[in-house]
Amino acid sequence: MQRYFIEIPQINERLVLPTNVYHHAITVMRLKPGARFEAVAADQKVTVMQLVEVTDETAVAKVCHKFTQTVELPLEVTIVCGLSKKDKADWIVQKGTELGAQHFIFFAGDYSVARWDQKKRTKKLARLRKIITGASEQAHRLSIPTVEYIEDLHSLTLEHYSERVVAYEEAAKQGEKSILAQLISRLKTVDKLSQTHLVAVFGPEGGISPAEIQYLQQNNFLLAGLGPRIMRAETAPLYMLVALSYAFELA
Amino acid sequence: MQRYFIEIPQINERLVLPTNVYHHAITVMRLKPGARFEAVAADQKVTVMQLVEVTDETAVAKVCHKFTQTVELPLEVTIVCGLSKKDKADWIVQKGTELGAQHFIFFAGDYSVARWDQKKRTKKLARLRKIITGASEQAHRLSIPTVEYIEDLHSLTLEHYSERVVAYEEAAKQGEKSILAQLISRLKTVDKLSQTHLVAVFGPEGGISPAEIQYLQQNNFLLAGLGPRIMRAETAPLYMLVALSYAFELA
Repeated sequence: MQRYFIEIPQINERLVLPTNVYHHAITVMRLKPGARFEAVAADQKVTVMQLVEVTDETAVAKVCHKFTQTVELPLEVTIVCGLSKKDKADWIVQKGTELGAQHFIFFAGDYSVARWDQKKRTKKLARLRKIITGASEQAHRLSIPTVEYIEDLHSLTLEHYSERVVAYEEAAKQGEKSILAQLISRLKTVDKLSQTHLVAVFGPEGGISPAEIQYLQQNNFLLAGLGPRIMRAETAPLYMLVALSYAFELA
Repeated sequence: MQRYFIEIPQINERLVLPTNVYHHAITVMRLKPGARFEAVAADQKVTVMQLVEVTDETAVAKVCHKFTQTVELPLEVTIVCGLSKKDKADWIVQKGTELGAQHFIFFAGDYSVARWDQKKRTKKLARLRKIITGASEQAHRLSIPTVEYIEDLHSLTLEHYSERVVAYEEAAKQGEKSILAQLISRLKTVDKLSQTHLVAVFGPEGGISPAEIQYLQQNNFLLAGLGPRIMRAETAPLYMLVALSYAFELA
């Protein structure tokens, strides 16, 4: 069933679909009266809605029933990525949303070739938010991840994060392969995992600079390898998210 | 260091770079005499080579030293995917190669919108092989994954595979979350993991048809959910590969 993020009325009340939802549900998906869809509100409750009236300009739906679901990762994860070229940011937020990240932060790393100036930044962030909303609906997420841009790693508000890790290719090359598993094992023993906020930092295509690594180490980031194969910059964040999902949601 | 798949000579012998390697190493990467690169031969041995002579048309390198590495997944994994639209196959083989798959097979599923006719197939497979070779070099793989196309799931040579799993969205929706972890736990106790050949089947964008699921079930495929979020067709194979990598290479 199609899912939309939308503030929904109480049971028995009716809802006029907002323009963007009308466009997707009626124009793109061609839903007809009687068709059902899911609406997710800010309180993460899911409501099954049924279309009762569709015209060329408006559509009205009524509430059928509400339910709750557990589809969010059991801990809060922020993915921090150095800017890479082309559409890699698009790709990272789309796949990262499917895989359960709650926040994305992009930064201009010491080795980033790309930079987002003020004008580009506004446009890029709007585009990323649109991709994230679409991916959240398709992945049946209960909340829409956030995305922001910071000038450099020093602008990261460290005190937000109780757990800190950086994917470090040099560590992987030297055969480091236990840090991530140790972190996950420890988190499995944490009492209130839902209050744990993990930040994971990934370099741009050019990698993380020695100065950046030093700054992160001084701020209690773990340097973790992600297996023996060299991954592209955009693949590493997904590796981290799947490892967390597998360990906490399946294993 | 840049890596190329190339048959290399014995120590102290010299190698004239093949045209495709010359193009990448000299024209694209602009390596100069004295620069080193890695050559991987069919026996999966890595040889560090040094450029000794570069002209506008040819380049000669000498052997420095050989070494062995463990960068391949400890079991053999074949990823079988229903055909989806656009460039999703490109994407699956590129990321799947980074993540350690050894074989890719695409099939026209019951719900596939895309089909590859004979002409398209040859062109597509050539393109995919090129992407896979590039990704293998960049990921520092020791072998280049294979790729082929089959008409439908019945054309899959089942006896190749000692372990069989299919990612099933309906299972995930019903909250199935232990099959993959159970399979991995069992494989961890296998004596000769390197002789284990796992096949993992993924539907196209439209999903796996009931007839296809029935056929797979009759042939001892496990129906596994991959977590509570709905993933796009191209994301699920990567989830499987990372779960295997995390479980066997890091945890």
